[in-house]
Amino acid sequence: MPQTDSSAPSSPPLAPAWPPQALAGMELFRGLEAAALAEVMAAAHIRTVPRHTPLFHQGDPAPHCHALLSGGVRISQSNAAGAQVALRFIGAGEMFGTVPLFTDRLYPADAETVADSVEIRWTETTLRQLITRHPAIALNLVGVIGRRLMEVQDRLREVTTGRVEQRLARALLRLAAQSKRDQAPDGTGTTLAFPLTRKDLAELSGTTLHTASRTLAAWEKRGWLSSGRRNGRVRITLHDVAALTAMAEEGRD
Amino acid sequence: MPQTDSSAPSSPPLAPAWPPQALAGMELFRGLEAAALAEVMAAAHIRTVPRHTPLFHQGDPAPHCHALLSGGVRISQSNAAGAQVALRFIGAGEMFGTVPLFTDRLYPADAETVADSVEIRWTETTLRQLITRHPAIALNLVGVIGRRLMEVQDRLREVTTGRVEQRLARALLRLAAQSKRDQAPDGTGTTLAFPLTRKDLAELSGTTLHTASRTLAAWEKRGWLSSGRRNGRVRITLHDVAALTAMAEEGRD
Repeated sequence: MPQTDSSAPSSPPLAPAWPPQALAGMELFRGLEAAALAEVMAAAHIRTVPRHTPLFHQGDPAPHCHALLSGGVRISQSNAAGAQVALRFIGAGEMFGTVPLFTDRLYPADAETVADSVEIRWTETTLRQLITRHPAIALNLVGVIGRRLMEVQDRLREVTTGRVEQRLARALLRLAAQSKRDQAPDGTGTTLAFPLTRKDLAELSGTTLHTASRTLAAWEKRGWLSSGRRNGRVRITLHDVAALTAMAEEGRD
Repeated sequence: MPQTDSSAPSSPPLAPAWPPQALAGMELFRGLEAAALAEVMAAAHIRTVPRHTPLFHQGDPAPHCHALLSGGVRISQSNAAGAQVALRFIGAGEMFGTVPLFTDRLYPADAETVADSVEIRWTETTLRQLITRHPAIALNLVGVIGRRLMEVQDRLREVTTGRVEQRLARALLRLAAQSKRDQAPDGTGTTLAFPLTRKDLAELSGTTLHTASRTLAAWEKRGWLSSGRRNGRVRITLHDVAALTAMAEEGRD
């Protein structure tokens, strides 16, 4: 059984028991046999974390490999003016905060839950032992980080060459791809897995809040998407993925 | 001995023999014993490539792990207008074109030599066999790709929040860090290892050719850098790294 952390020893918020099979959908552990998954789960620390809880801070020493079993995490960096700028959203099954174990051992960004979440993590020593016994984990790690590198390179090129509408459409489609399991209640679209603000979307697409808001409002009017509150959080639902894809592909290289 | 390729069987441009020790300085093979380096070298294909030779094209199937023993390679992507935009320069000892082996198996960019170069490469099958026998290679690979991810994330944040002068200074300092061995002939600076155009620098720092040229001319006037021809190629030499660093750090987060 994985160990569960608790910040209130007298009345610990018990993490539900997670079967090793919960790891099978994670790209990091793709191709591992059931026995290996059990070993990985047994070596993990699992904790439930309420939303709006900081998990680590930019510049702190980075001793863990982190992933999410459920919920969502916002990865952001502070800019020159000290404000937080959204860099990426992490959904269930995704890894985060792990690259520094292999580089300078300092978190390059802040991580904070945007929903009630279950975090799973391994110490660096444990991760290295698991990799030695199951080298497929290292190759999966290369795949995860490599795909993010390509994605950020695409975003960098878009910022310097693309139009704002393209960038915003691409940011929405990337978030939708992370949210495939979240069908809208009435089956008419994909609800983004993360409670995003318009400011988040402006930052993810490299534009101003004003431009992002104006563009989103125009698209809402056309019926391409809708935004609403669900469980008290702002949620965006994409209704016309084809139209957004056409916008994203316009002038695609 | 590594195998050497030749495009002219009758009079092959023989690649010089490279000792396994030539791999010791490469981050990808850090921590490997001499015997392991010999094994890695024996499994490699080495070829000499004149400058301005395309090595692969964006969208082509990606069957190799590539690195440079000497010379330089420009990695670029085509933008919406069909023009090439510089994304990264690869110097001696650096890996390139290898991420797609672990993702979608298609080169995400073009690669072309910018100087007479010696390329070393391994097939995917060979690389996977080497990783199985020497798992340290996989962890080194995570480090190389992870560092590039962090660097591109920094560039993305700079483009959306930083000033042009900052971005240009940071681009020059990154290129200088890749060129540590290239002291200026008179010892008064660091000559960038790559023959760069002003357009390259504009693209690497996400600005226009006009702004990049104007800024570089101003800095040349202040004595921070100089540009000149060496061996018939345009070379930039940084003379005042402290001033450029101050410019890069201004408002640093």
